Amino acid sequence: MRQNEAPGASATLAGFVAGAAWADVAAQSHEAKRSILNYFATALGSAYDPAVTSALRVVSPFSGAATSAIIGRQDRLDALGAAFVNAISANLLDFDDTHLDTIIHPAAPVAAPVLALAEAKAMSGRDALTAFILGVEVECRIGNAVSPGHYARGWHITSTCGVFGAAAACAKLLGLPAEGIANAIGIAASQSAGIVENLPNAAKNVSVGNAARNGLFAALLAEQGYDAAPFAIEGPLGWARAMGDQPDLERLLGGLGKSWEIAKNTYKPYPAGIVFHAVIDACFKLRARLDGRTDAIAAINVHGSALLLARGDRAVRNERDARVSIHHCAACALLIGAADVAEFSQAAVVRPDIVALRAKVKAALDTSLPDGAARVDIQLAAGESLEETVMTARGSLADPLSDADIEAKLRDCLRLGGTDWDGEDVISAVWRLDGLADMSGLMRASRGNGAVSSEKGTGSREESASEQETMASVPIRSERRL
Amino acid sequence: MRQNEAPGASATLAGFVAGAAWADVAAQSHEAKRSILNYFATALGSAYDPAVTSALRVVSPFSGAATSAIIGRQDRLDALGAAFVNAISANLLDFDDTHLDTIIHPAAPVAAPVLALAEAKAMSGRDALTAFILGVEVECRIGNAVSPGHYARGWHITSTCGVFGAAAACAKLLGLPAEGIANAIGIAASQSAGIVENLPNAAKNVSVGNAARNGLFAALLAEQGYDAAPFAIEGPLGWARAMGDQPDLERLLGGLGKSWEIAKNTYKPYPAGIVFHAVIDACFKLRARLDGRTDAIAAINVHGSALLLARGDRAVRNERDARVSIHHCAACALLIGAADVAEFSQAAVVRPDIVALRAKVKAALDTSLPDGAARVDIQLAAGESLEETVMTARGSLADPLSDADIEAKLRDCLRLGGTDWDGEDVISAVWRLDGLADMSGLMRASRGNGAVSSEKGTGSREESASEQETMASVPIRSERRL
Repeated sequence: MRQNEAPGASATLAGFVAGAAWADVAAQSHEAKRSILNYFATALGSAYDPAVTSALRVVSPFSGAATSAIIGRQDRLDALGAAFVNAISANLLDFDDTHLDTIIHPAAPVAAPVLALAEAKAMSGRDALTAFILGVEVECRIGNAVSPGHYARGWHITSTCGVFGAAAACAKLLGLPAEGIANAIGIAASQSAGIVENLPNAAKNVSVGNAARNGLFAALLAEQGYDAAPFAIEGPLGWARAMGDQPDLERLLGGLGKSWEIAKNTYKPYPAGIVFHAVIDACFKLRARLDGRTDAIAAINVHGSALLLARGDRAVRNERDARVSIHHCAACALLIGAADVAEFSQAAVVRPDIVALRAKVKAALDTSLPDGAARVDIQLAAGESLEETVMTARGSLADPLSDADIEAKLRDCLRLGGTDWDGEDVISAVWRLDGLADMSGLMRASRGNGAVSSEKGTGSREESASEQETMASVPIRSERRL
Repeated sequence: MRQNEAPGASATLAGFVAGAAWADVAAQSHEAKRSILNYFATALGSAYDPAVTSALRVVSPFSGAATSAIIGRQDRLDALGAAFVNAISANLLDFDDTHLDTIIHPAAPVAAPVLALAEAKAMSGRDALTAFILGVEVECRIGNAVSPGHYARGWHITSTCGVFGAAAACAKLLGLPAEGIANAIGIAASQSAGIVENLPNAAKNVSVGNAARNGLFAALLAEQGYDAAPFAIEGPLGWARAMGDQPDLERLLGGLGKSWEIAKNTYKPYPAGIVFHAVIDACFKLRARLDGRTDAIAAINVHGSALLLARGDRAVRNERDARVSIHHCAACALLIGAADVAEFSQAAVVRPDIVALRAKVKAALDTSLPDGAARVDIQLAAGESLEETVMTARGSLADPLSDADIEAKLRDCLRLGGTDWDGEDVISAVWRLDGLADMSGLMRASRGNGAVSSEKGTGSREESASEQETMASVPIRSERRL
């Protein structure tokens, strides 16, 4: 720091992170556990996705001693490699948690390296939880400081801001002093990357995985004396301005330790775009009133904001389209009464009765409805019509998932992800996280017992990624931001 | 690619890279060898720098099978780790090659992964050289397309564009088809990072090392089926626009295979800022005319452009300052007749006769002089005055270093870098690069025999990074861009 200058943002954030003890974060710990439970759910759900298997195949030969679990699989890697792969599986379907102010998915980039490092060093659950809460705080505050322009300009904010949270959390977990934490944050500024243009492609996974991996890497470098510019975030040639933003330092640093970003975290009940959740909820209500008469539906009219129509009025050719389709969401909710991972699979995309019902859906603008709300009316063949309006979707801050809902989501993800073991050990350990003396047990449990359902996995308990059927010739899908 | 759309920039670059054979690049191979020789020189010169030792200490526990040399050291790492560390040592003092149109240092991010991969897979020198030439082409063309705004806005262009060159080169070396090379380039767009604010700090090394490492990583992911957006570089939410640039597609893609960026590469004779080279050259000429009468110097007046004064009219407190000081460059050139690594060491910074002569230097604006030129006049105590003007400095495109000069630079760097072995095997192998059946021999030679001079190294042939004296408590220096 130059003389007579105020400390940089990195130093202020680092001072806060270094000084925070369990007592300072304990009140946030329940929400943090919910976020981590949701993290395990989505990572388990995608553990056998080809994108994860391919990432594992690439990283495995470049791993040091295998200290850390690959969630949902028998494989293990060093902590950097595990952070990379687990962040990918947790975020793959954008079914992980969402910080609505920034559309950051907070857990994947922060939990992945924190848990991998804590497992490698047999650290306590309380230390890991403390680091996670502080990392999410840094990540989302930096996101706040550059939102909404940052994302709109083309930066994939989960990746670009996630690396800061990962760096701060891992530096805290490593026990670095404030100066070291500041350096880790500043080193993260030189590793922040990821573009929106690549969101429909597997390249998206790379920036998400790197955010996790490189945040831990930044902390390890800082531990060995690597330093960074004091104004790496907000300086004239620093991160924010290079990225095109005038950082809002008040949103970045104001009220540190008083307000907490993790308190604004949300969890999705459905693996579809968040703006479609109200459509699904309205259709669930209508389905209850239909009492089995789906064959009698003549027309389905979905009304919503311009955002809903811009995002979701589209033809459905594949899983990606389905997740951001008004028509598909409405059809599944009405016909099946569910909107889980199975309803957004390729099998559902081409299922004749779903295809037929999708064709009856029309989307219409209603400027009186806010983003995130929907009104759906159904015309029946007999002339009857039914209507439901949902203003706050399930999973939103106004109607959050319950703890039991998140537990159920984990069980669903496990089943739909192609594994064949129950997740009760993981669920109970997450709720007891601050009492765990050693994170290794939870992380071992998160690998399951290797039992894989015949539908998706290989069926072998011991088979490693490198031995599995190659998917190299198959384009690896990712997902648009939901 | 969507129907009826022109191919994206990634695809066009990839088609060119995939189609290029040795016959297409052979005419560029001599310049490429000069660049690679200069790369070895600067990597050897910094092999025992604390920044390199610390990087090695961080990366070593996270390395897979050690297939690839750490240049100048007995250590080996996997190809990703070696690419990271070698790019750092090659670029540490910004004494590596310079593409003047963009100020990209082309070799470090591209040669480091190409050579590490070629060694790991025992590939031929001709294949490595071909990949290197094509990687530099991609790297510098992407730099051209966003210059000069990109650097000016705060992006460290060697890092941000280097990753593209590394990706293209490694994808070529791996033998990927055009589609795979395009995906590697597009994946690189989601890994492009590095800010100017961090240039005075060790964080700068991280983005340079990552450019090399992540370019190879992109190619490995593409090989396993990972894909990227067709317009990852130039799309509306793609790399260039997110970074703040309207990419110049003509500069990016025009004349592919006809003009070559490596032909515009330059090599520095002095480890100082490029704008100071004319000052040094003028002082060498004056020193010859002084004939030993340095004690008689009363005043030294250095005239130059606004850029020279803005960069170099400063107090000198440390090595970093010395490398960008008009006063220090002039004093060393006049007093010692040299401007090598030793003249920019901390010992030189505080040497009394240099300090005294620095105090006699005054800098003055001469708007008639272009950037890169200098006029120096000396007033002697007896009233005599001498003057020299240099319009094109040694090492510029107009007055390039000879092959023998670059060889001599490598020998100097070896000696000054603290090793105690000759580099003749490396020099001769680089000139024979296109005839080498297997790159392993050259890479083995580049590690030397472990002999380390007592001044800098540890003196032990076998000692690995992890066993060496820790520098963790010492802030790791990097260097401002020169």
